[in-house]
Amino acid sequence: MKVAVLGTGMVGQALAGKLAELGHAVTMGTRDPKATLARTAPDGMGTAPLKGFLDAHPQVKLATFADAAAGAELLVNATSGRGALEALQLAKEHLAGKVLIDISNPLDFSKGMPPTLTVCNTDSLGEQLQRAFPALKVVKTLNTVNAHLMVNPTALAGGAHTMFVCGDDAAAKQQVTGLLQRFGWTDVLDLGGIANARATEMYLATWVRLYGTLKTPMFSIKVVR
Amino acid sequence: MKVAVLGTGMVGQALAGKLAELGHAVTMGTRDPKATLARTAPDGMGTAPLKGFLDAHPQVKLATFADAAAGAELLVNATSGRGALEALQLAKEHLAGKVLIDISNPLDFSKGMPPTLTVCNTDSLGEQLQRAFPALKVVKTLNTVNAHLMVNPTALAGGAHTMFVCGDDAAAKQQVTGLLQRFGWTDVLDLGGIANARATEMYLATWVRLYGTLKTPMFSIKVVR
Repeated sequence: MKVAVLGTGMVGQALAGKLAELGHAVTMGTRDPKATLARTAPDGMGTAPLKGFLDAHPQVKLATFADAAAGAELLVNATSGRGALEALQLAKEHLAGKVLIDISNPLDFSKGMPPTLTVCNTDSLGEQLQRAFPALKVVKTLNTVNAHLMVNPTALAGGAHTMFVCGDDAAAKQQVTGLLQRFGWTDVLDLGGIANARATEMYLATWVRLYGTLKTPMFSIKVVR
Repeated sequence: MKVAVLGTGMVGQALAGKLAELGHAVTMGTRDPKATLARTAPDGMGTAPLKGFLDAHPQVKLATFADAAAGAELLVNATSGRGALEALQLAKEHLAGKVLIDISNPLDFSKGMPPTLTVCNTDSLGEQLQRAFPALKVVKTLNTVNAHLMVNPTALAGGAHTMFVCGDDAAAKQQVTGLLQRFGWTDVLDLGGIANARATEMYLATWVRLYGTLKTPMFSIKVVR
């Protein structure tokens, strides 16, 4: 399948690498491919410049957000929460009817650590994206673990932890759940419509504190029932 | 130890019963003991009137919030989030230097289901209580599971799930953690100061949705690491 991964940071690289490994034709999307390729310093999260990643994954292409989305059957939003709406806006001609896996979190680092959320409680970034682009089928998932665990869940406790999905389109959720299972997720919990993105985004308040307490991002939660 | 359990609903009854079973001298606190005893209908959460509970637990006493707190060495806030500040205000002469186990959640049911939170993201009910009564040592815990699991964690997966504590006073957290261990909790995770109550209260957005999805409140989360 042709997949566009929007965003070239740690999450984008993890998803693009895994999807390519699974045999998908992956194009990463960025605002300005030349500028992205010219970067020589790690990004704000400490991720190495994209050039090295692309050299190691020659089958992965790089294009503008619009060109990446234009050729894709499936979209992945791996931008920072801050950049999500704008990235999709730049690709708006090429979204209709497509499934978007939304991994972004509305984190606000401007008020110090741990970050707060720019939206929560009565709205969510997942809902904002769905409202802004109603022809997209937004499925919120993977935003509750770090980039490595997203695509390698069995690296922790043999995969004995839980991933959530939510979204308004049942078939889209089914497709995404199938992909999660290919990644190694065995406990995928469907929370319902996209409004339930409020839950998994608000869980980030716990995630950032567990990261501080445990001193490693290699953790996850299992819903014990 | 003399313990005051403020609140007579499902959570208050669960805590009072367990603490009495462990040999503590428990007084439940309510606004108007006569009115509480006169109730014959279940409360809004479907909990049976307190009279039956007290008949079955003759060692548990009932008093006003103030009188319950006055005689207690340890306080438990088991009121609804909405009533927490007011209950403590009514007992304000008797709080200084005491540990308060705060179980309440700032749930707002007025906007429909699932409930939202009256405070979150940049503040929390735990912090509000600590700020309003600085002489109290507030320890937030137990607010992430249902009343039965709070005091019977081994009833689910043999107890293989996680409880969080946070609070500004290290000795108070140590005392509360000891009590949690008596309840059967084996994985107690210290998130740090009381400001981290934001995390466990915001987790309620996930809890209420899991309750809707799983159709039972007998679930919990395990932090897998």
